[in-house]
Parts: sequence; structure tokens; C-alpha cells
Amino acid sequence: MEKKLTTDELKERARRWMKLAPYYHAFYEGKLQTVPKCAIRNLDDFNIWYTPGVAAPCKAIKEDNSKVYDYTNRWNYVAVVSDGSRVLGLGNIGPEAGLPVMEGKAIIFKYLGGVDAFPLVVRVKDPDSMLNLLESIEPTFGGINLEDIEKPKCFYILEEARKRLEIPVWHDDQQGTATVTLAALINALKLVGKKISDIKIVLIGAGAANIKIADVLELAGADSKHMLIVDSRGILSSARKDILERENNPWKWRWAVKTNPDMLEGGIAEAMEGADVVIAMSRPGPDTIKKEWVKTMADDAIVFACANPIPEIWPWDAKEAGAKIVGTGRCDFPNQVNNSLGFPGIFRGVLDVRAKTVTDEMCVAAAKALAEYAEEKGINEDYIIPTMEDWDVYPRVAVAAALQSIKQGVARIKPSRDELWERAVKIISDARKTMKLLMESELIRQPPPEDEVLSTYKP
Amino acid sequence: MEKKLTTDELKERARRWMKLAPYYHAFYEGKLQTVPKCAIRNLDDFNIWYTPGVAAPCKAIKEDNSKVYDYTNRWNYVAVVSDGSRVLGLGNIGPEAGLPVMEGKAIIFKYLGGVDAFPLVVRVKDPDSMLNLLESIEPTFGGINLEDIEKPKCFYILEEARKRLEIPVWHDDQQGTATVTLAALINALKLVGKKISDIKIVLIGAGAANIKIADVLELAGADSKHMLIVDSRGILSSARKDILERENNPWKWRWAVKTNPDMLEGGIAEAMEGADVVIAMSRPGPDTIKKEWVKTMADDAIVFACANPIPEIWPWDAKEAGAKIVGTGRCDFPNQVNNSLGFPGIFRGVLDVRAKTVTDEMCVAAAKALAEYAEEKGINEDYIIPTMEDWDVYPRVAVAAALQSIKQGVARIKPSRDELWERAVKIISDARKTMKLLMESELIRQPPPEDEVLSTYKP
Repeated sequence: MEKKLTTDELKERARRWMKLAPYYHAFYEGKLQTVPKCAIRNLDDFNIWYTPGVAAPCKAIKEDNSKVYDYTNRWNYVAVVSDGSRVLGLGNIGPEAGLPVMEGKAIIFKYLGGVDAFPLVVRVKDPDSMLNLLESIEPTFGGINLEDIEKPKCFYILEEARKRLEIPVWHDDQQGTATVTLAALINALKLVGKKISDIKIVLIGAGAANIKIADVLELAGADSKHMLIVDSRGILSSARKDILERENNPWKWRWAVKTNPDMLEGGIAEAMEGADVVIAMSRPGPDTIKKEWVKTMADDAIVFACANPIPEIWPWDAKEAGAKIVGTGRCDFPNQVNNSLGFPGIFRGVLDVRAKTVTDEMCVAAAKALAEYAEEKGINEDYIIPTMEDWDVYPRVAVAAALQSIKQGVARIKPSRDELWERAVKIISDARKTMKLLMESELIRQPPPEDEVLSTYKP
Repeated sequence: MEKKLTTDELKERARRWMKLAPYYHAFYEGKLQTVPKCAIRNLDDFNIWYTPGVAAPCKAIKEDNSKVYDYTNRWNYVAVVSDGSRVLGLGNIGPEAGLPVMEGKAIIFKYLGGVDAFPLVVRVKDPDSMLNLLESIEPTFGGINLEDIEKPKCFYILEEARKRLEIPVWHDDQQGTATVTLAALINALKLVGKKISDIKIVLIGAGAANIKIADVLELAGADSKHMLIVDSRGILSSARKDILERENNPWKWRWAVKTNPDMLEGGIAEAMEGADVVIAMSRPGPDTIKKEWVKTMADDAIVFACANPIPEIWPWDAKEAGAKIVGTGRCDFPNQVNNSLGFPGIFRGVLDVRAKTVTDEMCVAAAKALAEYAEEKGINEDYIIPTMEDWDVYPRVAVAAALQSIKQGVARIKPSRDELWERAVKIISDARKTMKLLMESELIRQPPPEDEVLSTYKP
């Protein structure tokens, strides 16, 4: 079991990164660049890449729109779109202040998934303006990753965008988190020998993540009648008229109606009694979930406490209180429920079949691929889900998402499993080789030493 | 003087590029990628580039919006935006079919100017939707390059966008062409010993290019009363009510009123009599301008015949008819009036001072820098303007545009001339080194041999 840390120690670790980050960001003046991917042997090549030669692919696309996937990089472009209305734990900080996050996401997309992601922080006045914008930019992209958009508008935007656009639209705070959480749960349940259809699940927090987690758990076999969802005002039920009246949130309301048939009232404490699984995506702890509440859970309890930077309960406290398996959102504890395990591979897969959408079923397929990968390596209480070091998990996830796209009839092309695998491996390893090469050549310089930066830090 | 070619021979040259282009485009599956520009030494670095560390630069930008230029690559992002309504000579082919051109433009931006340009082809229903879109995406970009948008909406969009946005907005078919044309004219006039304020100038074609050329020529000292503009219905004058009534084009109307005080009627033939300079940006030739019309021009006449792929008149015909200096839009003739000489350096310059706009005065400053560069190398009838091979002209243009931004009070920062020069040289040479490295390592492969492609070509 992991070493116990104090809140201060854990916060200090995060603070170290936060001290380094401004210097490092300023050192590189940003994190993403654009680079040609075609040969430029001499200036004559511009006669092919630009006028007059380029007119030929333009005409071919005009004749057959699908050829835009052959003649341009559209097949691999993903827009990382945010209005900056709910960035990390920082709230509505606006588009400019959200740009460092979207650039960060874009480099993870490339480094882990070989996806040519581009950040697009936008100033839009309402959800319909955001939808208009997404429709406008659709011709450029193979997919769209929405990020850090506040609820409930994030639900509306995702739902409408999926109807209106013929490319995959993904809100990582919803589907991404749901995929990785389900993967962890699948393996945790294997270890404790329980079936997802039989268990009582409590979701703490009713934001973007947990509402979509409820969708995906149900799709994976969980029984909504055995589920409880708790928000800041208590356990959801059809008695909670405030959800529609105050919050105007029909997505949450839908789950208030589907769960809690016994109309149980109360808060987290009441909800957790007898629960097999708690999935907390709520407020930073460490006291959001109390030890004594964990003690009231069923035997072999599973607790995912995913708030950042401090989990809703310390992992050691949860274990002392009887939890068998504990996951968090942090990389310095075992069982990190980490979105970066999901989106790079899932997008790799849906892009490689030129999918028209990305469905919740693909989330389930990707979650199963993640879980199987870890199982093959050998799961135990401290390893229920792969880590980012497990490079080869990304093409595995890609193939799973791609095959599910084909199965659901939303793939524009249908490569074989082997073709998908080889393509994903090649694209991802080329992305990593490119980085290595640029660093070795010092076109990307080494950053200033961390100790030097930290010693000169002025808060 | 250049070797005479037949129309067929010249068209065949262009056809060769157009035969190669689809194969080459499909071979690379597009032309642009995104690549991290910061070190990723190990996965721990994502704690700096992404959560939790990234929160620190986000907060800093929230406090002081200008820091987005320090902590992100916004300072170097340019959106290449088109609705595909007037692509090359192909007309309104739509956004998808325009994407190969915008990707081509993006790689030229990077290769010649070190600018991280990203193509954005968009489906918008009217000019105001385009303006809304530009306002929405502004927080991401250091500048916007509009491309291949039909007239007259391109005038409206540019004018309004310049008012509403606080980043440089550029329509390359307007300002870009005007800049390079003025550069060529400045040196041509030096060679024939005429002053711009004294000469009679005839503009053939009244599209995006020539309307802005008129603006920029006037700014550079040309007298609008000595200018004539000819469109497909004849010489513009204040008698031409059709310009407002049929075309609803106040930008063209403005020039109809300012030019041709004698209310001369007629077409190209009548306009050209006694002209010192003809600038044709109209219909592909070779008979749009007739030899006998050139004979009626003033001594030491200057003719720029810039239609592609076939100039309005063959250069040798223009010369035989008495023209002293001839320019075209083609790279295989001397004196290519080539936009690629302008936009990469101009954007390098305005980005490096984080300019709030790009003015017509910056076009003039850039044109003078281009002209001076050629003059230093030694101008003659066949070399009045640099070629794309003249690498070091780009930082020269960048410095000129940057210094003019500072002079006009629209620069957010004010580096010295030396700092500007060194920065531009470094950024541009790094872009070229990156390409070289990727090609040497075969991460960008050599394309299939041209002869092989051409021999298998099926039209």
C-alpha cells in the first residue's frame, strides 16, 4: 500500500508542478507548432502543393467530397474546442486563460495517439453560438474534442452536435472519464468476484463526468434501479424538482427519475450504506467522504475518489475503513483513473475508420480493451487499469473503437483488424519518433534545470 | 529574354504539376501536421504541460490577458480561413474542396515565414456569419489570413474584421498581391527613371487584387486622377451606376469616382493609350491584352500581366510591342509577381510585435523592403523583384512590417531592429531545419518518382 502523505505534502507536490509550469511555458513560448508532413525538396515542389498543381485535388474533392480524406490531413485533424467556461478546478476563466490546457491536450493527443489536434479556444455568447461554430468548422476536421465547458450547457452542446455533425464529437469530461472509469470498474469487479448487473453503485457528484458515467455503466450492464447519485443537495430522486426548476438540467433529471426507486433521502452518508461501489467525481477532499461512511459499505467495497488535486478520501483511509480496491485521479497513487488513457486511442480508432460519430458503445468497447490489456499484464488491487507508461495500450484501444464503429455502421471505411493495428502503431510511433528527433537535434531544447527554476521562484 | 513558348507548351507545364498533385497528395495523406514544440522528456512532464501544473499559467493569463502571448503559442498561430467561395480559378467549390489550397498555404507560411498556420475551411451562410466566426476564434490566434473568398463580400469581411478584431486580419488576395505588385513597380520605375506620382497607371480587372492595389498605389504616391481601372464592362467612372446598382460594390464604386476624371469611355484598348504602367489581374490570356494596344503605351512602358496559368499577354509579345519591363504571375518567366514573397515575412513581422492590426502602410513598408533587397542584389529588366530562392528577404520584410507596426502604435511589444532581425532569422531557419531533419530521417519519406507517377497517370 502506498505511503501515507499529509494534505500538505500532497499539495506541495502539485505546487511544485505549478511553480515550474509558468517558467517552462514561457521558455518554449507555447507547446504546439504546425509542421509540413509532405516533402519539400525544393521550391518547385510548391507547384505541386500549391498553385498550379493543387487545383487537381481540389477539383477531385469538388467531384467527390469523400476524397478530402485522401488528399488532405482532414482525416487526422481534431479540434480541441473550449469556451473556457469550466477549466480544471478554476471555473469560468475565459478562452484565453483556457488555451494552455487546450494546447496541453493537443500535445497529449499527438504524443499518445498520433492525432493532429489543434486547440481552438472560442468566445461564444451562448450554446447555440457554439453549435453554429462547430457546424461551421466541421469541413476542416475529422473529429471534435470538446473540453472544459460548464454544465448543463455541455450536455446540450454534445447532444445537439452529435445530431448535427457527421464527424465524431466527444466531450472528454463526459465520455473520456466514463470510459476510463468503466475500465477500472470492470477489473475491480473481477478481483472481488462481483457482477456489474448485481451491484449497488453510488455516484457522488452529478456533473458532466458522473451523468455520462451513469449512461455508460447502464450500457455496460449496471442496473439503474441499484444506482444512487448524490449532488450537493442530496440524493437524486424524482422528488427533486429543483433539478428542473432551478438548474434546468434535463440530463440530470433523467437520472433522478431512473435511479433511486425507493425515494431514499439524505446525503452521501445515507447513500453509501451497503454500496458495493462508490464513484466520486465531486469536490477536493480529503474529507468529502468520511471513513465511517466507507465502513457502512458492502464487503469488498470499491472506492474511486477522483477529485483533484486531493481525492475525496485518502486511499489509506478508505482501505483502513474496509475498502478492498481504491482508485484516484492522481498519478502518484495506484489505480489512476486518467482520461489520457482513453481519448488518444479512441480518436486514433475513430479517425482511422473516418467514423461519422462516436457512440457510448464505443466507450464501452474501449473500456473493455483497456481492462483486458491490464488483465493480460496481471491485475491486482494496485493495478486494475493500465498506466500511461503502457504504450501499446493505445493501439489496442484504437482497434477496439474502430471495430465498434464498423460494427455500428458509422465507419466510412472498413479496414481489417490487422490493418487497423498496423496503422495505429505506425502513426503513434512516428509521432513519438518525431519528438525524439527534434529533442536530440536540439530544435526542441532541454528546459532549464528544475532546481534552478524553483530556487528563483517568486510566488 | 525568355524563350518563346506556345500556349500549349505552357499549359502542358501546368498540366504536369496537376497530374502529379493528386498522387503526391494521396501519398502523404495531406500536407500539414501538428507537433509539440516543448520537451517531453518523460510522462512526468505532462504534470507541467497539463494538469496539475498547467493551472498556474491559466491563472496568470486570467489575471493578465496579455500573458497568453507568453505562455502559449498564440503569438505564432495564424488561421488560414476560407469558405471556398473563390478558390484559384475554380470558382465557388466549397470548403472541403478548398482545403488542399489552405493546407498548401499553411506549409508555405511555415517554411518561408516560420509561422504556425492552420487551415480552417468553414461552412458559413453569409458574410456576417463569417465575421461572427472570426470574432469567436480570435482568442486562439495571433493573426488571421483570409483566402479565396469571393468579391464583393471579401471587401466587407476584411473591412469589418479589421474594425472588430484586435489581431491582424489579412486577405492575401488583396493586400498580399498589392504588396508584391508595388514592390515590382517600385523597381521597374527606378529602371525607367519615372516617378510614381507622375505616371499614368491602368489597372485591368477590378477584383479583390486590383481594388486593393489601387489603395496601396495611392498610399505609395500614385495620383488617382492619373489612374484608370477597367472591368469586364469597360473603364470605371462615376457614370458607371451599374457598379452600385447591379454589383452592390461600394469598394469598387469608390475607385470609379476617384479615377478617370475625364470620364473616358471604352475598354482596355482605349484605357491603355499613353499609359506608363499596365497592371492586369484579370482573365487568362494570351489575348486579353493585344500587342497593338501595348504599342500605344508611353515610352518605356511597364506591363504586369498576372493572370494564371496564362498571362493576359505573352511577355515576348509585350516586349516586341515596345514594353520595357514585363512581369507575370508565373515562376517560369522572369519577374514573377508572387504573393509568397509577401505574406510569410509580413506575418512574421506583425506576429513578432504582437500587432493589433495590419495596415496598408505596412504593405507599403514591406513592398519597399522587397524592392530594396532586389536593388541591393542588382536590378535589371529581368530581375525587378526577389524570387522565392532569396531566403534572406523574408526576415527583411518581417523587420520592415514590424517596425512599421511600432511606428503606427499598433504593436503590443517593441523589440529593437536587431532583436527583430535575429528572432525572425532564428524562427525561419528553425522551421527549415525541422523539415530537413524530418526528411533526412525519413519520417517524411521521399515521394514516388515523378516519371513513375506520370507514366501510370489516367486522366
